[in-house]
Amino acid sequence: MDEFDLIKQYFRRQHSCDGVVVDNGDDCAIVELAASERLVFSIDTMVEGRHFLADMAPQDLGYRALATALSDLAAMGAEPRYFTLALTLPAVDHQWLAGFSQGLFELAEQHDMALLGGDTTRGPLTITIQVHGVITDDAYLSRAGAKVDDIIAVTGSIGDAAAGLQLLLREQEAADAFLLSRFLRPTARVAEGQALLPYSCCGIDISDGLLADLGHLVAASEVAAIVDVNALPTSKALGFIDDVDERQRYQLTGGDDYELCVAIAPDRWSQAKAYFAAQGWPLTAVGRIVAANSQADAISLRGSDSEILAQQTGFKHF
Amino acid sequence: MDEFDLIKQYFRRQHSCDGVVVDNGDDCAIVELAASERLVFSIDTMVEGRHFLADMAPQDLGYRALATALSDLAAMGAEPRYFTLALTLPAVDHQWLAGFSQGLFELAEQHDMALLGGDTTRGPLTITIQVHGVITDDAYLSRAGAKVDDIIAVTGSIGDAAAGLQLLLREQEAADAFLLSRFLRPTARVAEGQALLPYSCCGIDISDGLLADLGHLVAASEVAAIVDVNALPTSKALGFIDDVDERQRYQLTGGDDYELCVAIAPDRWSQAKAYFAAQGWPLTAVGRIVAANSQADAISLRGSDSEILAQQTGFKHF
Repeated sequence: MDEFDLIKQYFRRQHSCDGVVVDNGDDCAIVELAASERLVFSIDTMVEGRHFLADMAPQDLGYRALATALSDLAAMGAEPRYFTLALTLPAVDHQWLAGFSQGLFELAEQHDMALLGGDTTRGPLTITIQVHGVITDDAYLSRAGAKVDDIIAVTGSIGDAAAGLQLLLREQEAADAFLLSRFLRPTARVAEGQALLPYSCCGIDISDGLLADLGHLVAASEVAAIVDVNALPTSKALGFIDDVDERQRYQLTGGDDYELCVAIAPDRWSQAKAYFAAQGWPLTAVGRIVAANSQADAISLRGSDSEILAQQTGFKHF
Repeated sequence: MDEFDLIKQYFRRQHSCDGVVVDNGDDCAIVELAASERLVFSIDTMVEGRHFLADMAPQDLGYRALATALSDLAAMGAEPRYFTLALTLPAVDHQWLAGFSQGLFELAEQHDMALLGGDTTRGPLTITIQVHGVITDDAYLSRAGAKVDDIIAVTGSIGDAAAGLQLLLREQEAADAFLLSRFLRPTARVAEGQALLPYSCCGIDISDGLLADLGHLVAASEVAAIVDVNALPTSKALGFIDDVDERQRYQLTGGDDYELCVAIAPDRWSQAKAYFAAQGWPLTAVGRIVAANSQADAISLRGSDSEILAQQTGFKHF
């Protein structure tokens, strides 16, 4: 079986994606956009042993690889359209490929995303996905644009995926299905990102931990932030962790939740909150944007009485 | 030095690329197209030890990684615009990064291409590049569309890169600078691809060898082909190889030349040939499209008197 058979068997699927002029299978794909649309794209790599465990189920891996990439589109408020996949494999393992492609397309189909090109090569297991989406009429979220007094809000709950990863590392896999699934099959907040556009122009997804990612947001916006550690949205499952320090460490520095963190002007906050409540989506105020003094990326943590820490840390790739 | 410092130091460059709404450095890039433009894109991976030698100079590697990806845009007749880079590195090696980024941007700047996003991760050396270009008014080359009696034409000369690779493998590096450079720094035929649009709608780039790539073209077009082995465009340097079998093997199955192979209707051929001649660009007729009999992808090789082979072979990734 050569590269072309492999692609045909596992990665050629019917799709109903709009605007595809030349589909998967030529030297390039060609797509068209409507006049009001702009193209939004991002590339992400996952390396075995670094970003995922070698024994992770291929279904989960396929799902997770696309979900984490998709989260970058969610963070811009974009509507997903297509993706490309560069897959480096140590060998052709049909069981693995069947599982991986199943998990991948399970999520792709949820968002009507078409796979419009790829490359399969032989080497150490590495998964690179580029996702493409569109925004309309130049409405998008970016890291820049947070203003002093904006409310910092977070979707969903945070800290779950980091706790789930700990369960996996400790091989307590039966421990808590919710926390595990938050790590293994994260939800990219695609609908939430688009829904935030009327209320915000500034957001980021939480992939490296709230402190690290909010750090990027305030740096790009040339502001600082105060985060109220007691306000962090906490799932019931995470709440069962008795050790407050451990729980807050997951929530502040854990990463992998792929929730969105946005800055919302005070006069838009109640509307945004009401819209999310009507949808049944959590949206929690966790802090405030403040003026940058010496450090434009400083984040101060506020506990029940006073400031306790003024240092952002997060997952560093190197 | 973390991922962000590394990106800033080596991969953040000024550019003058049109239509960039959100540049490198946010969760996604955002670009706009003119109403008549369509987006063209392709992703390619190079793995150390598989697609390049471990001791290849990082300048050449950066140049070559972009050139081989760019060749897919050339094969569609697209105008290059931007690219993304997913770089997996075993460690932060500043000398390597300086060289790699120098070679990469040397070529990017030749085509006014902007780097609009990327991901740097730690792991075995793997380079994935997605290139993006545009076509205008829906004029493009694709693998499908070759018609019976079309002339099969090839740009430049072929077989050089395969001969150059052999010199490298035999460590005869002083042997022939031209052949070596054809492997180490291939030229994506970007201008030629665009220039072919008035004369052709069907083409492919020769990355895996003429037989393999022409095989894809005739399969997609549901036709067959006859190639005249004595007509293959041969550089002076390749002509010095006395062994005719070796030379023809490089030319038919060698790959890595990144020349274009196109099908041109007989009544357009003399115009196309004249236009290329006026530009000083070689364009050589090497065969004819014929009707598919039993096999839609059959390629017959014609020697000085009769048919000698009817089998296409090429580089298989798996």
